[in-house]
Amino acid sequence: MQLTGHNYIAGETSAEGADTFFSVDPRSRQRGDLPFHNATAAEVDRAVAAAVAAFDEIRNYSSSRIAGLLDEIAIQIEALGDELLHCADRETGLGLPRLTGERERSTGQFRAFATLLRDAAYLRPIINSEQPGQPSIRQMQFPVGPVAIFAASNFPFAFAVAGGDTASALAAGSPVVVKAHPGHPATSEMFALAMSKAVAEQGFPAGTFSMLQGAGIDVGQWLVAHDGIEAVGFTGSLRGGRAIYDAAARRPRPVPVYAEMGSVNPVVITPGALAARADEIADGLVASVTLGTGQFCTNPGLILLQDSRASQDFITNVTEKMGEAPAGVLLNEAIAAGLESAVEQTRANPQIEVLTGGDAIADSDYFCYSNTVMQTTAAAIRADDRLQIEHFGPVTLFVVCQDEDDLRATVDALEGNLTSTIHAEADELEDIGELLHQLREKAGRVIWNGFPTGVAVVQAMQHGGPYPATTAPGTTSVGLNAIYRFMRPIAFQNVPDALLPEPLKDGNPLGILRQVDGVSTAAAL
Amino acid sequence: MQLTGHNYIAGETSAEGADTFFSVDPRSRQRGDLPFHNATAAEVDRAVAAAVAAFDEIRNYSSSRIAGLLDEIAIQIEALGDELLHCADRETGLGLPRLTGERERSTGQFRAFATLLRDAAYLRPIINSEQPGQPSIRQMQFPVGPVAIFAASNFPFAFAVAGGDTASALAAGSPVVVKAHPGHPATSEMFALAMSKAVAEQGFPAGTFSMLQGAGIDVGQWLVAHDGIEAVGFTGSLRGGRAIYDAAARRPRPVPVYAEMGSVNPVVITPGALAARADEIADGLVASVTLGTGQFCTNPGLILLQDSRASQDFITNVTEKMGEAPAGVLLNEAIAAGLESAVEQTRANPQIEVLTGGDAIADSDYFCYSNTVMQTTAAAIRADDRLQIEHFGPVTLFVVCQDEDDLRATVDALEGNLTSTIHAEADELEDIGELLHQLREKAGRVIWNGFPTGVAVVQAMQHGGPYPATTAPGTTSVGLNAIYRFMRPIAFQNVPDALLPEPLKDGNPLGILRQVDGVSTAAAL
Repeated sequence: MQLTGHNYIAGETSAEGADTFFSVDPRSRQRGDLPFHNATAAEVDRAVAAAVAAFDEIRNYSSSRIAGLLDEIAIQIEALGDELLHCADRETGLGLPRLTGERERSTGQFRAFATLLRDAAYLRPIINSEQPGQPSIRQMQFPVGPVAIFAASNFPFAFAVAGGDTASALAAGSPVVVKAHPGHPATSEMFALAMSKAVAEQGFPAGTFSMLQGAGIDVGQWLVAHDGIEAVGFTGSLRGGRAIYDAAARRPRPVPVYAEMGSVNPVVITPGALAARADEIADGLVASVTLGTGQFCTNPGLILLQDSRASQDFITNVTEKMGEAPAGVLLNEAIAAGLESAVEQTRANPQIEVLTGGDAIADSDYFCYSNTVMQTTAAAIRADDRLQIEHFGPVTLFVVCQDEDDLRATVDALEGNLTSTIHAEADELEDIGELLHQLREKAGRVIWNGFPTGVAVVQAMQHGGPYPATTAPGTTSVGLNAIYRFMRPIAFQNVPDALLPEPLKDGNPLGILRQVDGVSTAAAL
Repeated sequence: MQLTGHNYIAGETSAEGADTFFSVDPRSRQRGDLPFHNATAAEVDRAVAAAVAAFDEIRNYSSSRIAGLLDEIAIQIEALGDELLHCADRETGLGLPRLTGERERSTGQFRAFATLLRDAAYLRPIINSEQPGQPSIRQMQFPVGPVAIFAASNFPFAFAVAGGDTASALAAGSPVVVKAHPGHPATSEMFALAMSKAVAEQGFPAGTFSMLQGAGIDVGQWLVAHDGIEAVGFTGSLRGGRAIYDAAARRPRPVPVYAEMGSVNPVVITPGALAARADEIADGLVASVTLGTGQFCTNPGLILLQDSRASQDFITNVTEKMGEAPAGVLLNEAIAAGLESAVEQTRANPQIEVLTGGDAIADSDYFCYSNTVMQTTAAAIRADDRLQIEHFGPVTLFVVCQDEDDLRATVDALEGNLTSTIHAEADELEDIGELLHQLREKAGRVIWNGFPTGVAVVQAMQHGGPYPATTAPGTTSVGLNAIYRFMRPIAFQNVPDALLPEPLKDGNPLGILRQVDGVSTAAAL
């Protein structure tokens, strides 16, 4: 495929700006030949205006028509063939096996939402029929309007141009303007082409989808500040997410920002678990910390245990294994530099001991960082919030607690996380309930005897959590409930049947389950 | 009852501050004798700390135990007897009939949430059972933790200390710290006493409820900025709500703000409706604009119609009726001053014609403002956003459009509202669909041939809308779904049955409906 290096605005390529940037192969640090054009303020305007115009049409499309678009997108992504995998591999170094699986996850997300949409009950129709002294009131969910999506670097397929945020916003019936991640601009363009083809193929207005390139912060700031944007989805760093959140909150007309900003994902290991399964847990932990070179928002970055001979042996064991594991490829120079700077900040605290790694690897011809294990005390963590920053990469920090009280006090001092994990044994269950409650308050997902990397895309999954994990702890960015971030309820009072949307009509022509006067039923009124 | 003028912090009265303010009777402009003490920063700290401590306990209470508290609150409010009605009437001038009805609505809200909680299905349990290669994942809703609630002036019962926001937050299982409205401090203290009694009676920790008095902005700012607060509910003015929203967004750890800030509630009247029912609509409109002296967030403040002899006659008719209606009592001096200043700002636009009223009433011994009708053109509204400000009181503004296109363009230019209304006839249905879609995009509730005042507390009600109507258009502040503003989903992965909360256990001991592997069922796993 011949790439252009241009933005995709409502189905047309556009390169009005003179500022360009280049794709970089993380395995060779070599930049590509094709210049990618940063979008201009005028191009951002144009993309949003096209999305606003598109919304005027698609807000009245049926759910099944939108489902058709989602299925078509999956087909067009597959039609990109293996060239997509090779392109993404060159830009991210993630490797073909991982990218092959991630592609399936991405197309699977579109198809899962398509399936959801084919039963319009997901619109949550609620009807209160007319009663003496009370009018007929009927509500369902509607799309909020144009959505801005910020792509992540670490999932070039599943959380990027055609990732879960884009899928859930389109599924909601909202046009999408994606700010692509500058770490993989060629991959982004391939996805933009597939998305634009699907939009055209299904007869949707071209403004239903646009993709903007941008290596700096300007494009994102212009996009979020635009009055035509009604909601924002973001996956990335705390610094980036907070900047977007702040920009949206400063608008004359603020809009919700659903930012997923990663976390340290605390893991508690009990004395019983260490006694029973120290080696197994050590192997699992090392595998989880180094998976994808540690570049997961669910990477276990903070390990809490009580001081003992067994725990010291465990730490030594993990440290050795981490030191022996090969240093993986990092996604790009910004990730490598950010990791170096984060670890530097952490080790500047005199209570931090570096057990292995803790430095950049000199003379490497690829972007990387040494697998790193650090150790500190519970008191140190409680005394300095900065020790809870995310080290995005193959890095973990042991927190050695004096005893159970020290551990409990430390868990209470934790910030919000996507996940929290506990390793324990069956005979500890009675004593562990309160600790589990504490861990629950700090996260969106609590894991028992497992590891937080690996996020099953199922209905019960919750991928979210209190700030700084996200800016909207009541929502999820993985799973089908992600769609409701981009919808809002609208109620109709006494509106004649002819003017009601299909899911709310007396006769229930779609034959869907509805809440009618408090009862779930598919019957007509 | 002997009032103290103190704050209620975790069941104890407290008056550490020297700054005081007084209750004022709006019918006589006379202030009462009892000084009410503004809470100090230390008292705010203490209330929030008590709420945080209380949450540690009540986060593990069963839904039915919380339901018991809600029922008890309703009983304790009723036990305040008619003294509550007289006290509120003296402080608000709303009159005993209205207040009697509002009291029933308030106790009804607590009882409705108690009923909801007695079927734990409201916790939305979702289970994905273990499958090859996929762990067991189970999620349900949990309370977010301590909530700050800001009481409104215009509903001293239903949206104040013991109003819908407080009821929904407590129902969620979150402790509440209420910032009372300074317009009715004695009424607020009576409610605080009832709430505190109920908390004690049901054996809840005292920090479950606190009430802070404050005549200025400091108490609210301290409260929202406090790190122990996890979410905020607000009902009041755009200026007040935006200040609270901004304060929460500036926090090191931002939290969601659910602010309901009122709106102008546009009403479109078609030529057909005018031809068929001009007098009836005029009567209904005047009644709706002057109801409660116009002090409703759903007051119809912007009436759009097409220029014609009939519409001019209609405007004349409404103007005459508004001029003849007696000037009602306004809640307090701040409301009266705010209304005067809002109308002054509006009439400063040369395109605004004042048809009746438009000024304060000299020499009145009660707080009031003349019933006011203004008129302008569609072009003027589109040219100046400031003409869309809310005039909180018995004021409405006619927007005369040249033709249907002019009307449509004006509806497109409207800001977000709680409601939008259309009066039309059956033979216009075919042409009106697109206009209805436009009105839908501007509001949370669309009303056909009715008036927006009157908000039925039913499941299908949506009381919310795009900014500036609210800061969270995906949520409602009326009806049972209001509870989810103060809850968040938490997922459990592979957690042993003994440690799971009751609604998620294998055996379904509560016998509730759950989503299990995509199917709604009350069966055990």
